[in-house]
Amino acid sequence: MFMNCSFPVVGGLHATCRKPLPRQFSPLMVAMVGLPGRGKSLLAKRLARYMNYTGDTTKVYDISDYRRKHMKKYASHEMFRADNLPAWRIRLQSFREALEDAAAWLQQSDNKVAILDGPNVSRSQREEIYDLVYTQLGFRVMFIECVCEDPIMLERNFKETLQFSADYRGMATEEALKDLTLKMAHYKAQYVSPSLGSEWELPCPMVKLLDGGEGGVIAHGVAGIKESKILSYISTPKPFQQTLYFSRHGESEFNVIGKIGGNAPLSPRGKKYADSLAKHIHALNLPSLQVWTSTLQRTKATSAGIKAPQLHLPELDEIYSGDCESLTYEELQELFPRELALRDHEKLKYRYPQGESYLDVMKRLIPILSQLETETNVLVVSHQAVLRCILAYFFETPMEEVPYMHVPLHTIIKVTLQGYNYNMETVKMPIDCVDTNRAKPKNCSENRSAEDALITVPAHFENVNQLTRTLEAI
Amino acid sequence: MFMNCSFPVVGGLHATCRKPLPRQFSPLMVAMVGLPGRGKSLLAKRLARYMNYTGDTTKVYDISDYRRKHMKKYASHEMFRADNLPAWRIRLQSFREALEDAAAWLQQSDNKVAILDGPNVSRSQREEIYDLVYTQLGFRVMFIECVCEDPIMLERNFKETLQFSADYRGMATEEALKDLTLKMAHYKAQYVSPSLGSEWELPCPMVKLLDGGEGGVIAHGVAGIKESKILSYISTPKPFQQTLYFSRHGESEFNVIGKIGGNAPLSPRGKKYADSLAKHIHALNLPSLQVWTSTLQRTKATSAGIKAPQLHLPELDEIYSGDCESLTYEELQELFPRELALRDHEKLKYRYPQGESYLDVMKRLIPILSQLETETNVLVVSHQAVLRCILAYFFETPMEEVPYMHVPLHTIIKVTLQGYNYNMETVKMPIDCVDTNRAKPKNCSENRSAEDALITVPAHFENVNQLTRTLEAI
Repeated sequence: MFMNCSFPVVGGLHATCRKPLPRQFSPLMVAMVGLPGRGKSLLAKRLARYMNYTGDTTKVYDISDYRRKHMKKYASHEMFRADNLPAWRIRLQSFREALEDAAAWLQQSDNKVAILDGPNVSRSQREEIYDLVYTQLGFRVMFIECVCEDPIMLERNFKETLQFSADYRGMATEEALKDLTLKMAHYKAQYVSPSLGSEWELPCPMVKLLDGGEGGVIAHGVAGIKESKILSYISTPKPFQQTLYFSRHGESEFNVIGKIGGNAPLSPRGKKYADSLAKHIHALNLPSLQVWTSTLQRTKATSAGIKAPQLHLPELDEIYSGDCESLTYEELQELFPRELALRDHEKLKYRYPQGESYLDVMKRLIPILSQLETETNVLVVSHQAVLRCILAYFFETPMEEVPYMHVPLHTIIKVTLQGYNYNMETVKMPIDCVDTNRAKPKNCSENRSAEDALITVPAHFENVNQLTRTLEAI
Repeated sequence: MFMNCSFPVVGGLHATCRKPLPRQFSPLMVAMVGLPGRGKSLLAKRLARYMNYTGDTTKVYDISDYRRKHMKKYASHEMFRADNLPAWRIRLQSFREALEDAAAWLQQSDNKVAILDGPNVSRSQREEIYDLVYTQLGFRVMFIECVCEDPIMLERNFKETLQFSADYRGMATEEALKDLTLKMAHYKAQYVSPSLGSEWELPCPMVKLLDGGEGGVIAHGVAGIKESKILSYISTPKPFQQTLYFSRHGESEFNVIGKIGGNAPLSPRGKKYADSLAKHIHALNLPSLQVWTSTLQRTKATSAGIKAPQLHLPELDEIYSGDCESLTYEELQELFPRELALRDHEKLKYRYPQGESYLDVMKRLIPILSQLETETNVLVVSHQAVLRCILAYFFETPMEEVPYMHVPLHTIIKVTLQGYNYNMETVKMPIDCVDTNRAKPKNCSENRSAEDALITVPAHFENVNQLTRTLEAI
């Protein structure tokens, strides 16, 4: 396995001996295979999102991005003809640059999975990937072939490509469609599908995905933790059009008086929001609507008026603040000043005594997110910290920013898949409520003053009666 | 979906309305399909072990156990002939009893996956499973078909069946082999393989496993968290003969003086154990031996003399005791008496302040265990708590007992797969060491005396020099 190679070897082989390391836990290159418009890029993007959220640092290298760097403007399908030698050279160069960048990235520590997104239609390309990544670097390789024969799915994929591909930006639809059809024909002429079973050409895992998973999955030689995790993820078909709705519970009595955690009922204004949410959702007339809430009374009460099947899931419960449950920030500062300072210092990793951290919540949400990604028209009614973690999944928010994302009360969040990414729209309902968003204070040291610790605590009432009186006075 | 059914409906449908619940998170029935000797039972047993350890309570219902209840002694293959009506009735009755018991078990709360282990070779049997579990109870169903055509694998499976099946206990080998061959022929005559793709007979997930996964996997309609987790687990081929070795590091300087955690070097006796371990392992002359250790110096030093590729994995590091690292139990009782009492009260779930619990360790070990299950001839050099969790996986130790398992220093543990279960042998090396096993004290209350708290602390030295002097005096 060890050999002189032109590629700089950093992490693949044992530093102190010539014996190759066992490679069960080595970085992994995932190479996509398939004709254009078969759903490769969407799958690559989704897979990367899932792997990153679940702790395997993953990056997509899109060969077409490299090709576009060499050709300032996309001209036409002519560049994909097998007999167009200058264009063929550019395409080969783009393939190699993407491959080498991906391999170099995998050699850096903590980078675990690189996805090489491109057609990789020829056997020689696949062998080149295998030789560099497996033989020379001592890493792992896995191929994912996207096959699609379903005419309805193909037409939809074509439309998506025309709408979202950088190549067709600014081109008239009819011209673009004609061009894409010819481009496809050129690729088809060069396409050698890797067969499966004993005939699969390379000694590494290969997964064939039929019609985006709807037609099933054929897998060969899957061994290794990351590979089987990937198989598990891609084998579940996911919708190409997807709309999800999110809301926090209506304002609770604890929100009103600035307490965290607990299991309080809705405030009078929270109940109004529940009515208003039900009206808003009913007006949308969503087919096969489902409602998922936490098991706490404030989310159940918020969704109670919505006519749809309801699931109450403990995974959607608010972050558990353990010994600090049902306290205000003022009480926290009085009773546990060190804990509040530690939390402000590193809110993502901070775990309440006998309670949870944001990282804990992100972990317990993984099965729910996996399921949610296969659904459409689900309304999730949950809590501030939990919704931060859920939205961070769809929008790939950097981990450190998650605990500070703004998810206000009395606001409906609509998330729609558009092309390869998600889009967010929010509707703020005209029902007053307290603000529960406490920004990170400047001073996070353990010996700060109470004033410094509490400077960003949002305004709240002293008790619920005070709110009731205020409402009556209006 | 809702209908009057003879089977008592408890958990499948919403209690308060006639609308069926979304069933994404419902219990799951996994039904095996395949001829005898195709590896179904071993797979069912392994899958149940994995699911239970990873938090999905799972139970195997073996149809042949029910059949044996009705027929006190196995007579011969004649009972599997399609035209043997009385025997056919017994077999059908056994199938139904196992299915109904499994379904009733799934209706109890917290039971998540039932595996119906049996040939289920006819289409009508599979339809009966589907109708009861999916249509009547509103649960989920998944089929796993084991296909094996590889003659070497088949011969090995036959030998295993003859050796471990209750039917052939006490029968002469030649007679048993003849009987098994005829039994197989009867089943083959009744076998209708569920085809895949658009022709698969039922609208539920189906996975076909070829030659125990070595020949690949074909999956159809896999949706749902548990189903994709199962696909991921079964798609990775696992050896039928497997031997793994485990050892704690040699006695460390911290062990000598009764301190927990930390990153101390080996004691003089610990170094002797390292030499002795290397000699013992070399004498075994294991092909393709690998050594996996933690990243702490005491495990690396213990395995340093072993000539084999070595992997140092942070997942194998000792349970992290956070604020309590590097303290003796006496110091723990002095500084954190409440923490020690809480830990003694519920050691499995107890999490050290800023540290880990046994449950945390079990979770972080899952990827390592998944990989380890596909290996043979691996020596794992790790730590007391970690090895407790690892051995608990292979031996299906009840969770509550895990923190009290006896895994002494200077002992080599050999674990071998025998039939469907693992067998353990231990070799205690003749090199003295302290005992680090602290039994659960009778009094675990927070206001107990220091004496009560420390009553089970094993003997240790005051400092390392004291041990050195003792050794010199010998």
